[in-house]
Amino acid sequence: MKLKVLKANISTGKRKIAVLNYKNANELDLFAGDRIELKLGKRSTICILDVAHTERHVPVGKIMLYDETAEFLRAKNNQVLAIRIAKPPSSIKLIKHKLTGRKLNKIEYRTIVEDIVNDNLSDIELTYFVAACSAHNLTITEIKHLIDAIVKTGSIIKPKSKIIVDKHCVGGVSGNRTTMIVTPILAAAGLTVPKTSSKAITSPSGTANTMACLANVSLGEKEILKVVNKVGACMVWGGALNLAPADDKIIRVEHPLCIDVSGLLLSSIISKKISVSATHLLIDIPWGKGSKFTSKKEAKLLKRKFKLICNVSGIKSKIVLTDGRSPVGYGLGPVLEAIDVMKVLRNDETAPQDLKEKSIILAGKLFDLVGKTFWGKGKVLARIILESGSALDKMNEIIHAQGKKRLPPLGKFRKNIFATKAGKVKHVDNKHFSKITKIAGAPISKGSGVYIKVNLGEKVKKGSVLFSIYSSTKAELDYAFDYFKNNKSEFIIIS
Amino acid sequence: MKLKVLKANISTGKRKIAVLNYKNANELDLFAGDRIELKLGKRSTICILDVAHTERHVPVGKIMLYDETAEFLRAKNNQVLAIRIAKPPSSIKLIKHKLTGRKLNKIEYRTIVEDIVNDNLSDIELTYFVAACSAHNLTITEIKHLIDAIVKTGSIIKPKSKIIVDKHCVGGVSGNRTTMIVTPILAAAGLTVPKTSSKAITSPSGTANTMACLANVSLGEKEILKVVNKVGACMVWGGALNLAPADDKIIRVEHPLCIDVSGLLLSSIISKKISVSATHLLIDIPWGKGSKFTSKKEAKLLKRKFKLICNVSGIKSKIVLTDGRSPVGYGLGPVLEAIDVMKVLRNDETAPQDLKEKSIILAGKLFDLVGKTFWGKGKVLARIILESGSALDKMNEIIHAQGKKRLPPLGKFRKNIFATKAGKVKHVDNKHFSKITKIAGAPISKGSGVYIKVNLGEKVKKGSVLFSIYSSTKAELDYAFDYFKNNKSEFIIIS
Repeated sequence: MKLKVLKANISTGKRKIAVLNYKNANELDLFAGDRIELKLGKRSTICILDVAHTERHVPVGKIMLYDETAEFLRAKNNQVLAIRIAKPPSSIKLIKHKLTGRKLNKIEYRTIVEDIVNDNLSDIELTYFVAACSAHNLTITEIKHLIDAIVKTGSIIKPKSKIIVDKHCVGGVSGNRTTMIVTPILAAAGLTVPKTSSKAITSPSGTANTMACLANVSLGEKEILKVVNKVGACMVWGGALNLAPADDKIIRVEHPLCIDVSGLLLSSIISKKISVSATHLLIDIPWGKGSKFTSKKEAKLLKRKFKLICNVSGIKSKIVLTDGRSPVGYGLGPVLEAIDVMKVLRNDETAPQDLKEKSIILAGKLFDLVGKTFWGKGKVLARIILESGSALDKMNEIIHAQGKKRLPPLGKFRKNIFATKAGKVKHVDNKHFSKITKIAGAPISKGSGVYIKVNLGEKVKKGSVLFSIYSSTKAELDYAFDYFKNNKSEFIIIS
Repeated sequence: MKLKVLKANISTGKRKIAVLNYKNANELDLFAGDRIELKLGKRSTICILDVAHTERHVPVGKIMLYDETAEFLRAKNNQVLAIRIAKPPSSIKLIKHKLTGRKLNKIEYRTIVEDIVNDNLSDIELTYFVAACSAHNLTITEIKHLIDAIVKTGSIIKPKSKIIVDKHCVGGVSGNRTTMIVTPILAAAGLTVPKTSSKAITSPSGTANTMACLANVSLGEKEILKVVNKVGACMVWGGALNLAPADDKIIRVEHPLCIDVSGLLLSSIISKKISVSATHLLIDIPWGKGSKFTSKKEAKLLKRKFKLICNVSGIKSKIVLTDGRSPVGYGLGPVLEAIDVMKVLRNDETAPQDLKEKSIILAGKLFDLVGKTFWGKGKVLARIILESGSALDKMNEIIHAQGKKRLPPLGKFRKNIFATKAGKVKHVDNKHFSKITKIAGAPISKGSGVYIKVNLGEKVKKGSVLFSIYSSTKAELDYAFDYFKNNKSEFIIIS
């Protein structure tokens, strides 16, 4: 069959794509997503086939080429192309093996990761890999292979320091912006902390979302190195960097199902840490009802795996299990969390004490781990640094080095939720608060969120304000309030 | 954030799609493939987000709407849109459950299949479902639920007959066009055979590809019914029909990995048969080295599953294990297979006897199954019908009823492969012949393929022609010949 070129004048920015009318595709036995080889004169290329279901833009007998494809082939309209099915990349066979539960070796993981990074796999193919890793757990050795492959296919940031400290929280708890307090505490003590954070996947805000309310977080690799070498720390968004690039592509196909695949989660986290040259790592695993890990057994299992992987990767680690049942801090949503963080750093008397204390504990564990203090005394040092204002000074240095931003305004639509009876606050439900914060518009709308006005164990009067919802639109506020009404008995339990 | 409409003037033919620049997508924490809800005035819709990686076509601050989305929202350029993340369809949660190995019930499968048919699932989401079914085998009860859901979400063809006969081969053997001989034999005996075939997935030609060389195979449901009620049988392409539509969508995501998921394979086949109202079904499972099922154990396991599912589905079935080690017939590729089929029906003395005998056995089993003959005597009846020319007459009736086509020419580039020694033909390798046929251009190029000139057990002289390769282009012929040269000792074993 002869197909005539039709230039689309559309750029995809990455992949080479060609589009056939569905009638031709059927006739040629080709499917959308197939790899095809196009030949025009002496030039040939492999691209991905898309199929048009009407004749409106791609008539029968034509092949529409997106800019990248047309430019590569130097194609002109109405030139005649040869088409054939291209060979699949070599990792396809390995993914099929993995789907049957077979263990893969170092070279096999390297092959898969290289194909991921080089965009040789379609979304469908990559999804099979993620699903296979989800259905058949990876062994520690497999995770190590995967980490090595992910690190090797990306850039590495190497700050000028022998000891490089990092922390990580596996997430699942709203608020919980300890990173933004721990990082300046550590840096104020002279430690090097090149902190990169990924985006919120399941929570209403991630560290990068919250930090973005105070400073520029979209720094390049060179800028990060400059900031870290100058002020000792940074808190940036890792997503646009070339650190462990395979990881972001994997996360992209995990996202639609909101799944965290244990083996992939581990390799994702550790490869990012190795990519910033971390030597010492603290990992926070919140667990309990309403968090990612509901049983202590699950959390302990993950802890054991982290320990093993850090050991084989040559990273000194401290892994702590923390209480993940309730939100940490009062504010949920980027702006409200940023306000909480700054209150803690400023030693404001209205600062959330749970966020402060958790941050001190975590920073303390890291001081102990790197040997800054006698084992167990790190907490004392962390408190001194925070309460003396040194951490605040360091935070301001970091903000200025990254590029200070003006705090966005809070959502202008607000609704207070009142206690319907008097009593003691027994439970603040993490899952419902996380959900309502997202419904209110966070993290898309930075100023949207929830501000909790009570502490666990606190006595409240009937009619007192329990929490406030902030939204940037009336519709989102109403939608959030509806969600509250449908679940009101489960948000804050008073007895 | 306010986004201004930019009309793309591109139609996808199906899905509603909107495109953001990656900078806006990052800012809004949105990923390609996310479901977003767009609101413009009083109209709102859910569509799938795509992300542009350059500013060339989608500048920051704009949202590009494909025709389907723009028309639905009645959007004009530069109007301002509201955007938010839409809720995922209800089957997402079920797919996550399945991925952990949980068994799903009737209602849950119905929910998933409805979302598949209504295009509510993205390719990534659907892939997770297929991968989950692949990693965790479905039980017979689950397969039954899936079949029920697939049948109920599609059309049903109901020919005017109490007994409706169908046959199916699980594939994996080149040539093997028994359906095109069995169907006219059965119909010549007065049985009703509404045969629909899907496309070749892993083989160089499917029944629909081969039949398309002789007759129109793209009939609608009403036309099929008309043909079947008139001449008793049809042989059409099932792909464009609304019979078990979920199945085609599932096959589409199985295709990139060329995987056949056992539970999905079973439900796919049986749901298609129920959709044409089949009461009696013959299933051919070729097995042996080089076919889909290499061990008899695997083939027997599949046979047992088919039997169970046919029983619970109320279909009377006969399942036969056949020799799948060598190609059946001389010709491989659409035109060459069509020539073989017509030779057998015409009782041509050069007709491939293996294809003839296998067809007689299969047709005989079906005569026995429906009670046309005393058990075991069906084969005699089948032979009489074939050798008397009644089957040929019926084939011509079917071809004319569907719309006769002129046989496409054979590929004009040919290469003969000669025996390098004298001896007896011990083995003809199915896998290598299947592969070389595809490399030669089949099924895209109908006239491309391979013609095998020797039979198993036959004595050959040194220098005699073993097989010929046909291609429509010189390049494909060379490519095929290269493949032969690299594997020459394994194609035909002579000793």
